Amino acid sequence: MRIGLLGCGTVGGGVLKICRTLEPELEVVRILTLPGEMEDPLVTHDANELLDDPAIDCVVEVMGGIEPAHSFIVRALEAGKSVVTANKAVVAAHFAEFTELAERHDVAFKIEATSGGGVPWIASIEKVRRVDEVSELGGILNGTSNYIIDAMERDGITFDAALRQAQELGYAEADPSADIDGIDVANKAIISSTVAFGSLCRRSIPRLGMRFLTKGILDALAGFGWSVRLQARARQDGGRYAVCVEPTVVAASSVEAHVPTNFNLATLVGATVGELKFYGQGAGALPTGNAVVQDLIDVAAGDRTRYATEETLQWDPALLSAAYLLATSAPVGQSARPLPGAPAGDKALYLVLGCDPERAGELCRAAGEADPTTFCASLSEEAAAGAERLLGL
Amino acid sequence: MRIGLLGCGTVGGGVLKICRTLEPELEVVRILTLPGEMEDPLVTHDANELLDDPAIDCVVEVMGGIEPAHSFIVRALEAGKSVVTANKAVVAAHFAEFTELAERHDVAFKIEATSGGGVPWIASIEKVRRVDEVSELGGILNGTSNYIIDAMERDGITFDAALRQAQELGYAEADPSADIDGIDVANKAIISSTVAFGSLCRRSIPRLGMRFLTKGILDALAGFGWSVRLQARARQDGGRYAVCVEPTVVAASSVEAHVPTNFNLATLVGATVGELKFYGQGAGALPTGNAVVQDLIDVAAGDRTRYATEETLQWDPALLSAAYLLATSAPVGQSARPLPGAPAGDKALYLVLGCDPERAGELCRAAGEADPTTFCASLSEEAAAGAERLLGL
Repeated sequence: MRIGLLGCGTVGGGVLKICRTLEPELEVVRILTLPGEMEDPLVTHDANELLDDPAIDCVVEVMGGIEPAHSFIVRALEAGKSVVTANKAVVAAHFAEFTELAERHDVAFKIEATSGGGVPWIASIEKVRRVDEVSELGGILNGTSNYIIDAMERDGITFDAALRQAQELGYAEADPSADIDGIDVANKAIISSTVAFGSLCRRSIPRLGMRFLTKGILDALAGFGWSVRLQARARQDGGRYAVCVEPTVVAASSVEAHVPTNFNLATLVGATVGELKFYGQGAGALPTGNAVVQDLIDVAAGDRTRYATEETLQWDPALLSAAYLLATSAPVGQSARPLPGAPAGDKALYLVLGCDPERAGELCRAAGEADPTTFCASLSEEAAAGAERLLGL
Repeated sequence: MRIGLLGCGTVGGGVLKICRTLEPELEVVRILTLPGEMEDPLVTHDANELLDDPAIDCVVEVMGGIEPAHSFIVRALEAGKSVVTANKAVVAAHFAEFTELAERHDVAFKIEATSGGGVPWIASIEKVRRVDEVSELGGILNGTSNYIIDAMERDGITFDAALRQAQELGYAEADPSADIDGIDVANKAIISSTVAFGSLCRRSIPRLGMRFLTKGILDALAGFGWSVRLQARARQDGGRYAVCVEPTVVAASSVEAHVPTNFNLATLVGATVGELKFYGQGAGALPTGNAVVQDLIDVAAGDRTRYATEETLQWDPALLSAAYLLATSAPVGQSARPLPGAPAGDKALYLVLGCDPERAGELCRAAGEADPTTFCASLSEEAAAGAERLLGL
């Protein structure tokens, strides 16, 4: 199969390196880069040269960002080329359009590398769906945020020091917003739930970031036998569904609390297979390049998987009702019960029971008016059971 | 696809239940059981009725044991029927014969359910191999032994009490030898390494059980920041390979140390994808039935995966050299260094550095002459680094 590569940064470089070990089955024949980015006889700086080349069967889009990635993917599909992409932002924004175009032109559109890097996550969801309805999914889908929490806990350092470490190691961008505010995980959660539930998720999902997680909060949580991880959560039940992203307080004894450095751990639940978890490198040139190449192998073998293009399930955030923790110095409403024990630095800890993620966002924003560094997290079922014992409920 | 079911116990019942949700694609048309086992119009007690029926395309063998399972699988393959089996013992013993027969008769022979129950382990190894050489694999592949250790640690109970719990819950057999002596894991490790390394493993691999793990030993390990898990370990490098099964001392902060109850966690390492771990239910009617049904769907789609029928790699146990722990009241040789700190009940703890699993077995058997309840375990790299610090190395 003859492949055109749109972009040759970190992931593109990984794709190129791996494809060259698999020639002639997978042959990269043209690479679009910015001028001065790399020297290679295959390089062009003119997208038309690649997108208009009838000898190219499949386009790999690893540029990132919405435009021109979106236009290039549309043009490639309309030209009858299959597309494999690692770009979660453009897929989360234009999933139905890409799927419809791929179907209309009878080509493949594949997205394994958008979610979980080298973790075989999207393909595993698809495989589980051959037998089971997926009722729940979620987990740690962002390595940068996990690295920051793990470093804070392991080395006792501040959020800012851990973020600087992550930036020095190349895990975090200069502007870390997408990682620490949950935007990256939200895109992955939108894509994963669309695949898992067979219903298009095309909305702004409830999202809480971890920008205001402090060592004081982590220490206070540790005192209760808890840790925290930035996680996606999604559920479907009886024709309804919901998806959200937020820090989740987990038992210190949970598997999630021991995911080290920048690894990912994604979870799904199927009716007969039960709970499955998938652990691996969620980013990096070779792991993510590997995910792209796995898709390329499937495309070459004729895989024409189609994703949902309609939101057939009804949005119902109550499906994700949970106990929520607020760490804030702001006054809070009646529904928030103070947790016993020491405060977390300058903040008091409160628990709100039976709250859905949209209402949790409202509570967090309300407290944020008086304390802009208010931190809010859901509690896992295990942590919530412990919290209810603490409150004597 | 028309399916004949050889055996309808726990796993067979799960297969039947799931297949009935997927009719007519997967249709169970005949079931071999023992007289009195179940009532169903499809039941026969005569294997010939099933194996000689030309209308049956695929035989599912879920009887367990070596004979008559082996003879029935051979007859099915020779009759041009595909075979899907959950029987690790018969596959570990006759892997090459089954693979050769399947190839000769151009039918499928599939084994997902032999290793890791509902965990998509064998298929994941095969998928990784499309891109990467698998250099290492292993992990927790037996839920019963994990349940016993987890219960001992969580509830502070003895090995015997934890084993009785596992038996009451149906996780352990009346004779638990296959689970606690590592025989079950050894079969899975032989199968997994054959698939992963593309070289037949057909030998008696080094194996240490966990029959003599005591609360005293676990408490002493906890004092060093360690836990223990019964694990498979396998490596290939430069045309050589080795496979073993043994308790492994792991850091209490590791993911492995937090695998709860009877779950499995299998690990592999590929050159570009890095480290992947797969977590799920390693046993049970529906999870294991699910694995069988996933194979059936692949068989129906024409999957003709072939496994290795020759041992093309050279056996070299030095590839698995590690630090080993001995917990014994027997006198030990010069190479064993006493670990500082409290003894583990009536046993002293020793560390042997740079030891391969075959020599570790010899040391354990030698100590076992004076103390038949000697317990021996390898150390993970992380635990070994800690041990060397303890010894001032």
